[in-house]
Amino acid sequence: MNPLLKEIRHNPMLWLLAFVPAVFAAAKLKPEAHTLLFVLSVLAIVPLATLLSHATESVAAKTGDAAGGLLNATLGNLTELVIALTALRAGQYTLVKASIAGAVVTNTLFMLGASFLLGGLKHHVQEYNRVNARVQAILLFLATVALLIPSAVATADSAAGAAFTQELSVGLAVLLIVAYGLGMLFSLKTHRELFASAEHAEDGEAPWPMGLALATLAGVTVLVALVSEIFVESVQQAAKDFGMTPAFVGFIVVALVGGAAEMASAFSAARKNRLDLSVGIALGSASQIALFVAPVLVLLSYVIGPMPMDLRLWPGAVVMMLVATLTVTLVTNGGRSAWFVGVLVLMVYAIFAMTLYLLPPGVQ
Amino acid sequence: MNPLLKEIRHNPMLWLLAFVPAVFAAAKLKPEAHTLLFVLSVLAIVPLATLLSHATESVAAKTGDAAGGLLNATLGNLTELVIALTALRAGQYTLVKASIAGAVVTNTLFMLGASFLLGGLKHHVQEYNRVNARVQAILLFLATVALLIPSAVATADSAAGAAFTQELSVGLAVLLIVAYGLGMLFSLKTHRELFASAEHAEDGEAPWPMGLALATLAGVTVLVALVSEIFVESVQQAAKDFGMTPAFVGFIVVALVGGAAEMASAFSAARKNRLDLSVGIALGSASQIALFVAPVLVLLSYVIGPMPMDLRLWPGAVVMMLVATLTVTLVTNGGRSAWFVGVLVLMVYAIFAMTLYLLPPGVQ
Amino acid sequence: MNPLLKEIRHNPMLWLLAFVPAVFAAAKLKPEAHTLLFVLSVLAIVPLATLLSHATESVAAKTGDAAGGLLNATLGNLTELVIALTALRAGQYTLVKASIAGAVVTNTLFMLGASFLLGGLKHHVQEYNRVNARVQAILLFLATVALLIPSAVATADSAAGAAFTQELSVGLAVLLIVAYGLGMLFSLKTHRELFASAEHAEDGEAPWPMGLALATLAGVTVLVALVSEIFVESVQQAAKDFGMTPAFVGFIVVALVGGAAEMASAFSAARKNRLDLSVGIALGSASQIALFVAPVLVLLSYVIGPMPMDLRLWPGAVVMMLVATLTVTLVTNGGRSAWFVGVLVLMVYAIFAMTLYLLPPGVQ
Repeated sequence: MNPLLKEIRHNPMLWLLAFVPAVFAAAKLKPEAHTLLFVLSVLAIVPLATLLSHATESVAAKTGDAAGGLLNATLGNLTELVIALTALRAGQYTLVKASIAGAVVTNTLFMLGASFLLGGLKHHVQEYNRVNARVQAILLFLATVALLIPSAVATADSAAGAAFTQELSVGLAVLLIVAYGLGMLFSLKTHRELFASAEHAEDGEAPWPMGLALATLAGVTVLVALVSEIFVESVQQAAKDFGMTPAFVGFIVVALVGGAAEMASAFSAARKNRLDLSVGIALGSASQIALFVAPVLVLLSYVIGPMPMDLRLWPGAVVMMLVATLTVTLVTNGGRSAWFVGVLVLMVYAIFAMTLYLLPPGVQ
Repeated sequence: MNPLLKEIRHNPMLWLLAFVPAVFAAAKLKPEAHTLLFVLSVLAIVPLATLLSHATESVAAKTGDAAGGLLNATLGNLTELVIALTALRAGQYTLVKASIAGAVVTNTLFMLGASFLLGGLKHHVQEYNRVNARVQAILLFLATVALLIPSAVATADSAAGAAFTQELSVGLAVLLIVAYGLGMLFSLKTHRELFASAEHAEDGEAPWPMGLALATLAGVTVLVALVSEIFVESVQQAAKDFGMTPAFVGFIVVALVGGAAEMASAFSAARKNRLDLSVGIALGSASQIALFVAPVLVLLSYVIGPMPMDLRLWPGAVVMMLVATLTVTLVTNGGRSAWFVGVLVLMVYAIFAMTLYLLPPGVQ
Repeated sequence: MNPLLKEIRHNPMLWLLAFVPAVFAAAKLKPEAHTLLFVLSVLAIVPLATLLSHATESVAAKTGDAAGGLLNATLGNLTELVIALTALRAGQYTLVKASIAGAVVTNTLFMLGASFLLGGLKHHVQEYNRVNARVQAILLFLATVALLIPSAVATADSAAGAAFTQELSVGLAVLLIVAYGLGMLFSLKTHRELFASAEHAEDGEAPWPMGLALATLAGVTVLVALVSEIFVESVQQAAKDFGMTPAFVGFIVVALVGGAAEMASAFSAARKNRLDLSVGIALGSASQIALFVAPVLVLLSYVIGPMPMDLRLWPGAVVMMLVATLTVTLVTNGGRSAWFVGVLVLMVYAIFAMTLYLLPPGVQ
């Protein structure tokens, strides 16, 4: 039997694929029903993201260690990248930036915290590889610094200030991509033995044949792009209808939708007492967005956006990224976890979510 | 012989109890002598706080482990709570907030630093349970984040901003209390073996009989409340006479007075090379104020205050709490201490005290 | 043969001594050629700094452990001190402050990062004494707090604010010097066994005879002072000609010139797998500047400056010092290093350098 169909039959999340045609039909028939389109597009993106991550892993498994790791690291956040690219092309830079910062914060705090909590409820104390957690935390810290410094230094809102921020953003984008590349060289090549336990193959599932995997990768990416367009168009209006602030939507809703597939993997690994894998997925995904997706978007904005995008975030978002990084550093320091550690990390996330939800419009 | 009288005879600090009637007499006879009333009320609160903490421990010792720990954790900062409640009822919200932040900073930096120094002068290198210190440091970090975010995010001083801050404060207060409760569940119930050494009974003293302990608890709480009223009324005027800024009074003086009893215990434990106990008292007390006393005051302000109180602190106070938390994290990371570590922690406190002392009026 | 001449013959860096007479000649003949004078003075200061550090070490080696350590710790940053004193006398307080903050940031990030990178390129994983790194990191943190608090607290730019900042700066300067002195007592006397491996004599070179060392120390200090005068006079104008911002010059160029000698030692030790020594030089030098050189300059400004200097830095500089301290803390936490750790630390430095280079004039 076709492994793709078999996968769909076994994984209930993939039944949501039925919403993919539904969202296209609704967009055609009721282009003004923003709330409906928003809900349908969310329900359609989640299973597509799951398929995308399986296809990526299958290709990675076939192409051998180094190339596979590279591929996984590059395409692991393809969903987030495609959503952000759609928003970028539409010129919605506030949404792009909020979704980047939100993805970093959600992956570090929510994905990691919930993994600790879910794992901790089943296992008394869990241990994991500190070295990997530490390297990821330092990478995240680096990205936060790159986002913090332009905001901290540029006080003037003059024309000179804007030009400075733009130039600096391009320079920082290049720096971050270089750091990300060297980090992969380090963890996949020169010092891969230090990261050993986090490298594990996922769940021992048989990978798909190469052709199927590549075809799925290509086809699903196109589908994600199409659904993202509907999602990005409807999200702001739908947010208003739900009484949510734009900041909450960009930071929390988009990030949870985009990361649903990774979250499913991370939580299931935590339950199986393979916390190394959970920590690797959560922090790896966060640092990939901060060091790879964000700078790529800045550089691509010169090509596909209506105008160049800079790296300067809303100060509240920088504070949240900084706090998320410090929390991860504090919490992963010992390489051990119990349920309460998860609660604490989730509490920090809840503080952010509550603040963004209550935020009066116009502050962000 | 009555254990209460025996205690008073053996503990020179309790001789200060003579100042309790003195302060009431002075308040009756010379209600305008603010400086005198201030000095007398300080001298009266210190022995009352000592009695209160002995009574709490005696009740806790009788009621068994979990309930006793709960009681200790809830009533351990009764003095601070009563003083703050008195100031809250008087509508002195600036003093309430300064005393909360000051108590957190004083307990983390002064109490911990002086314990390290006093212990280190007697013992070359001291070791203590890192797990407890780390959990307390993360709890403190969580509370600081809860206080930092509203200040960092709310820039507008508009009416919308004020409503937002108030709503958010109530939400955060509930979150903090939940985190505090779960923290007790964790350290007293599900993972109590990790905190083993810090749980020790204090000094092997025989606890008082239950009736005496309960009666002392009730009676002394009333006395503290009455003396606090005189203290709160006189402190601002007395501060002016002494040339101290209101910020210095709230942050340093009130915090030192309110924490005198815990400090005596923490220092004596450090000298006896039981640093686990000192660290537990200092950090436990700080996180209790931040996660329990402060949110309870916010919620109670709806009932007993002239108007609702929010959680937003003066930015300088947030910075000081954040620095105090980072200092503790840095310093307790290794689980070892020597005299110089104490000096460093005290230096950070001295920087704060000096800044607050010199602060021109009107800045806070 | 005279050990001074022998040293000069063996150490190619000392051949740069030829630029010392050249810079004096140029200053006499072409006092308006700022760019030339700037380049020549840089080339002259580097070998003089190297000689100065050799002479200091020779005197230290002869005077025995405690006194030698004291001497080394006090005169180790003599070059930076003399340059800063020259700028102080010229009333260039912005340059003085930028060079202090820059020296701290450059020593922590560039010197440490490059040591990790150079060592890591030769050795797979390197280990070093964590205790020393931690104490130095906490000392740096203390100094950063001392610089952070006045800036964070003093918002008013009124006359009262200025008087407050000045008073506070003197108080903080005294506090920092006391902390520095107690730190030496701790690491050289009471707990010297904890710092054992970092205390090593440098490279087993035979020290110079006492007379030669003292004469070199005195003579070279005078030369450095004279060259510094030319350097300080020419640097601002030359920076403009090179298209560099004043912030970049003070922070990066002056710091790299002043620290060239220590950098040579730190890098060579890292290549020889003696990372303890590299970490000790880099962090020791940074904390010496922050806790000794900076406060001494504040106090001396009352005697030799045109007006008192305060400790309040440009907010961007405080953020950079704070980030540098956090980076060091994060990175040295494990006591192990590999090449990528060096890359990460250098990246943070590159972010700062890039920001300062692009900064529009008038922001600092």
